Amino acid sequence: MAESGQRKRITIIGLGLIGGSLGLAIKASGSLSDVEIVGHDRERSAEDTAKRMGAIDRAEHNLPRAVEGAGMVIIATPLLAIREVLQQIAEDLSEGCIVTETGSTKESVMEWAAALLPTTVSFVGGHPMAGKEAQGIENADAELFKGRAYCICPSVDASETAVRSVVGLAQLVGAEPLFLEPHEHDRYAAAVSHLPLLVSTALFTLLRDSPAWNDLAPMASSGFRDLTRLASGDPRMSHDIFLTNREAALHWLDRMMDELRRFRDLLEGDAEALMETFGRAQIDRDEFIARPPSRRTPTAERGDPNVRQELMSAFIGGWMADRLKRARELPAVLRKADAAEKRPSRGERMAEDIRRDIEKLEQKRKDKE
Amino acid sequence: MAESGQRKRITIIGLGLIGGSLGLAIKASGSLSDVEIVGHDRERSAEDTAKRMGAIDRAEHNLPRAVEGAGMVIIATPLLAIREVLQQIAEDLSEGCIVTETGSTKESVMEWAAALLPTTVSFVGGHPMAGKEAQGIENADAELFKGRAYCICPSVDASETAVRSVVGLAQLVGAEPLFLEPHEHDRYAAAVSHLPLLVSTALFTLLRDSPAWNDLAPMASSGFRDLTRLASGDPRMSHDIFLTNREAALHWLDRMMDELRRFRDLLEGDAEALMETFGRAQIDRDEFIARPPSRRTPTAERGDPNVRQELMSAFIGGWMADRLKRARELPAVLRKADAAEKRPSRGERMAEDIRRDIEKLEQKRKDKE
Repeated sequence: MAESGQRKRITIIGLGLIGGSLGLAIKASGSLSDVEIVGHDRERSAEDTAKRMGAIDRAEHNLPRAVEGAGMVIIATPLLAIREVLQQIAEDLSEGCIVTETGSTKESVMEWAAALLPTTVSFVGGHPMAGKEAQGIENADAELFKGRAYCICPSVDASETAVRSVVGLAQLVGAEPLFLEPHEHDRYAAAVSHLPLLVSTALFTLLRDSPAWNDLAPMASSGFRDLTRLASGDPRMSHDIFLTNREAALHWLDRMMDELRRFRDLLEGDAEALMETFGRAQIDRDEFIARPPSRRTPTAERGDPNVRQELMSAFIGGWMADRLKRARELPAVLRKADAAEKRPSRGERMAEDIRRDIEKLEQKRKDKE
Repeated sequence: MAESGQRKRITIIGLGLIGGSLGLAIKASGSLSDVEIVGHDRERSAEDTAKRMGAIDRAEHNLPRAVEGAGMVIIATPLLAIREVLQQIAEDLSEGCIVTETGSTKESVMEWAAALLPTTVSFVGGHPMAGKEAQGIENADAELFKGRAYCICPSVDASETAVRSVVGLAQLVGAEPLFLEPHEHDRYAAAVSHLPLLVSTALFTLLRDSPAWNDLAPMASSGFRDLTRLASGDPRMSHDIFLTNREAALHWLDRMMDELRRFRDLLEGDAEALMETFGRAQIDRDEFIARPPSRRTPTAERGDPNVRQELMSAFIGGWMADRLKRARELPAVLRKADAAEKRPSRGERMAEDIRRDIEKLEQKRKDKE
């Protein structure tokens, strides 16, 4: 990651759960023992704790000085604070510095970076898909990222070295790098991360605000506790997420309401369909847990052409066209990063996916006629 | 629990996760070492496993013979099978036998018992609020019920001894007995147990059936996994639950959709209200986890009279009238059981609750005028 003596420094800005865990995980890897980890936080107490826990080598409470001479700067502050940090550090970044961050949404962050950072540095967005409801440096954990996806969104003009370095960081902390475009990231994160947050919180507030709460609560068991866990998350994080990813969150929230209406019909309908739906959900979820799909090993097609076709048809207008368009526009750097990892390029894989999807759709239309 | 030599026998019918765990927990308590535990299951392999695990002392594959001479019979089969079991054992139950079960809903079960059991036995419905998605005797666990609520619904003519025995069973396995009327149980279970099951399954099927699944799934983290855990539950159990508790489930499903619409408005509205909602949810959920409310220590009132008032007003028609009616009709046996436990009688507590609720509502109406 470092070429000159001056470059052997990583600065982590924001020493909360994520920043602290990154520091601990880098240290635990043992691979960067010649690199100094400098930490900065708005709160001096967080800096002290991070130092005491061994998440950083040195704290630097002056922000511009903290990034001085750093080869890589990792911004792990709350999402909306990233913009401010970028403004404050822009002038003090060394030439060739790699700037990355860990925000939960990407489109806004990529725009801020493009607008605020000098062209002498390389920006690569990042989002480790890990967390827990207990916040703060006190809960930092070197194992937090183990086996999790680490989304990587290179800026259009990020250097190949910068992309490889952030991939290296993800692998170093035990995560699996996953290349995504910002738009794509935000849409998918809305589905797997922000929708569960909404559903979990809404389930909790519904029951908590019910006049029957004092009667209901003593009956609550592990199911209710697990389902409402995300309601205990940091409210500032939720606030920032929904402010920067409102459209995608609304899209998935609407689809969730549709799905609940489908379940309502099932409850009112015949028992066999109900049984089938719950049976299929069990099989599919067990399969998901046993063999989580990855982009490298696509899951096998499943046996319900009707449901699939309906959903696909609803999507074909915008979705496919959009994917095709984006497949053509893929920045060269992504293809290069993929090539470096010796796998088919992202463009090739997307094109292949789309060809397959369209063939299937056409086949199903023919079958239907 | 036993008075004569012949009575020192408990029969467990249905040796799955719950039946097996009850056997293990009774054994682990060490308090009933003079009682023989007889086990029966439709599957001989489950009987063999239960015997090998030490959940039962003896298997008896002939159902009528299995209940012969038993002082207590615990039916832990799937919900809809309880009816059939009651029919099959009715004639062979000893006089004074205590019959209980562990079904997830109560109104239907209580009706079946009233219709099918002879008046010489005492029926007390039960529902331990515990479980996990891994089913079967192989996953039985003596600790499963520790600290969980154990709902108890005595039949109108259950003997005081029978009620005390089932309370004793619940305490023996480490659970907290909770007296409920069947109607009340089913409505509350729909909220804290059946609604989470629907929400969890719907969230999973929504994403699994999405054409973007192969792109979404690799990003899924612990949040999505926890939120969809209940989708891996036994589909027959879900089927039986929603068949016997359809109305209450639909009621809560509708309210969940309303709550999601409220969150939709929040996402589209001003950021401050969004922040406040997530902030309050965090505080309330942390409080719920730190100090789970019980009927003996009612939670303090919270500071949002408007939300509370709206919800209370919507309920006042049916709910309060219904509670008042039921408070007057409380069977004597419940008051006796409460007295035996040296706490205010359920009737007294309900009357007190209702008085308080109505006073508050009236005060709020006055404040509004």
